[in-house]
Amino acid sequence: MRLKPLGDRVVVKVTEAEEVTKGGIVLPGTAKEKPQQGEVLAVGSGEYIDGKRVELEVKVGDKVIFSKYAGTEVKLDGEEYLLLRQNDILAIVE
Amino acid sequence: MRLKPLGDRVVVKVTEAEEVTKGGIVLPGTAKEKPQQGEVLAVGSGEYIDGKRVELEVKVGDKVIFSKYAGTEVKLDGEEYLLLRQNDILAIVE
Amino acid sequence: MRLKPLGDRVVVKVTEAEEVTKGGIVLPGTAKEKPQQGEVLAVGSGEYIDGKRVELEVKVGDKVIFSKYAGTEVKLDGEEYLLLRQNDILAIVE
Amino acid sequence: MRLKPLGDRVVVKVTEAEEVTKGGIVLPGTAKEKPQQGEVLAVGSGEYIDGKRVELEVKVGDKVIFSKYAGTEVKLDGEEYLLLRQNDILAIVE
Amino acid sequence: MRLKPLGDRVVVKVTEAEEVTKGGIVLPGTAKEKPQQGEVLAVGSGEYIDGKRVELEVKVGDKVIFSKYAGTEVKLDGEEYLLLRQNDILAIVE
Amino acid sequence: MRLKPLGDRVVVKVTEAEEVTKGGIVLPGTAKEKPQQGEVLAVGSGEYIDGKRVELEVKVGDKVIFSKYAGTEVKLDGEEYLLLRQNDILAIVE
Amino acid sequence: MRLKPLGDRVVVKVTEAEEVTKGGIVLPGTAKEKPQQGEVLAVGSGEYIDGKRVELEVKVGDKVIFSKYAGTEVKLDGEEYLLLRQNDILAIVE
Repeated sequence: MRLKPLGDRVVVKVTEAEEVTKGGIVLPGTAKEKPQQGEVLAVGSGEYIDGKRVELEVKVGDKVIFSKYAGTEVKLDGEEYLLLRQNDILAIVE
Repeated sequence: MRLKPLGDRVVVKVTEAEEVTKGGIVLPGTAKEKPQQGEVLAVGSGEYIDGKRVELEVKVGDKVIFSKYAGTEVKLDGEEYLLLRQNDILAIVE
Repeated sequence: MRLKPLGDRVVVKVTEAEEVTKGGIVLPGTAKEKPQQGEVLAVGSGEYIDGKRVELEVKVGDKVIFSKYAGTEVKLDGEEYLLLRQNDILAIVE
Repeated sequence: MRLKPLGDRVVVKVTEAEEVTKGGIVLPGTAKEKPQQGEVLAVGSGEYIDGKRVELEVKVGDKVIFSKYAGTEVKLDGEEYLLLRQNDILAIVE
Repeated sequence: MRLKPLGDRVVVKVTEAEEVTKGGIVLPGTAKEKPQQGEVLAVGSGEYIDGKRVELEVKVGDKVIFSKYAGTEVKLDGEEYLLLRQNDILAIVE
Repeated sequence: MRLKPLGDRVVVKVTEAEEVTKGGIVLPGTAKEKPQQGEVLAVGSGEYIDGKRVELEVKVGDKVIFSKYAGTEVKLDGEEYLLLRQNDILAIVE
Repeated sequence: MRLKPLGDRVVVKVTEAEEVTKGGIVLPGTAKEKPQQGEVLAVGSGEYIDGKRVELEVKVGDKVIFSKYAGTEVKLDGEEYLLLRQNDILAIVE
């Protein structure tokens, strides 16, 4: 049982906060929008840009940073996932 | 007597909440937008993207997740249905 | 004396509420947007989509469901009609 | 001395309310947007749709229904006119 | 020293209110948006519509009606002018 | 050390208010948006209009009028400049 | 470990305020939007403009001015970065 996102959406497994602090990204305590980190598990079929379907830039396995308040949480077989639009993803961490 | 949705709309039969909790998707109790699950019963003729009619990505029979507050409820012959735009569908559950 | 709607508009004769309750569509008493049923009496010349005029999907005689608060009511020779944009029509009942 | 509307605008002579009540269109006393009736006296050169100038659908002499709060009133040589965009016109009465 | 408006803008010399009342246009005392009259002194190079530069419909010397609250007033060598976008001009008075 | 504006932006040196009053443009004391005058010091590479990069209409050296509240002030080597989008410029003073 | 921004985004290292004051740009103490200065560390793959991917105008190493409230802060390996869209960048300082 798995999630196949539509269009320009991706399924992301959010990295635990502890892991984040250790791993590299630390979210600064400011009033600005705080990003979160996660791993891409599935990507949609792409987005239509001026009549042509364009593949998403992110790939399965990419570690990505995204806005904390973006997307919709779902639980599947006891696991929590986040459904994001690619546009809510800020950068890939390489 | 059946519903034929227009354009990029689909008719969805919402899965009962009990079934959802057993089946797989559990809606977490957060302040975020909660998705719901259902089955696609009918799809529209497609949407116009830059002058070309593009078939919908969801098909009849697909199990889909969508935003809880999306769409319009209708009752036909005593059965309740939901009329959604494809864009309100987040992912297909396979 | 008859109404010829412009562009993507259609003239709809709203089905009486009693008839609706008997016939099939029952509007549920929720806080969601409630749809109404009617019959299409006239359709506009179509809508421009990326430079091409596209015929409307609904035809004269179609039974349609639409949002309760959509459109503009007019009375012509003592009869009440509703002027809707096609986009306010959710589905055709077949 | 006459008014030549620009682009997708038309000049309409509003039909007097008394005439309307006798003639055919009666505006129902609901909370919905109430349409008004008038006659088209002049039409603009057309509107640009995706790079092509498209002639207006309404012609001089058409009896039209439009939203009550649409347009701008002007007086010319003691006569009152209404300057409307074609999009504010709901239907032609034939 | 003169003003050369950019793009779809025009320079208008507003006709004095007295002149207006005598000449033809009388602004009715309603709650609706009141138009004003003036003469076009200069026009911009045109506007881009779907990739093509299109000449403005109004010409130097045209007497035009426009929304009272549109545009920006400037004084040049002691004279007041109004800088309007063509879209704020409702009609040409011929 | 100089500023190279991006896209459709221009760098403007605002003319001192005194100079303005003497020179020609006097800003009237009304509630309307008041324009300011300045000289263009640098222009961006142009703006994309329907897929084609189009050169800006204003050139270095042009004396321009723009909305008082438009743009962003920067100081470079003790001099103040204004960064405007071309669209905020109303007219060139010739 | 580095950040690869998506689409039209860039990674910027914000220049310290002290350095800014010395270097050249001084932010005036007005009510207007205050710009900040920084250096571009990474640029996205470009933005789609009417169906064509267009390379970003800013390059790695450019010193740029941007709106103070634009973008999202992230910390990577103890260093703070700013993720901006190219459109939030006002000018390059040369």
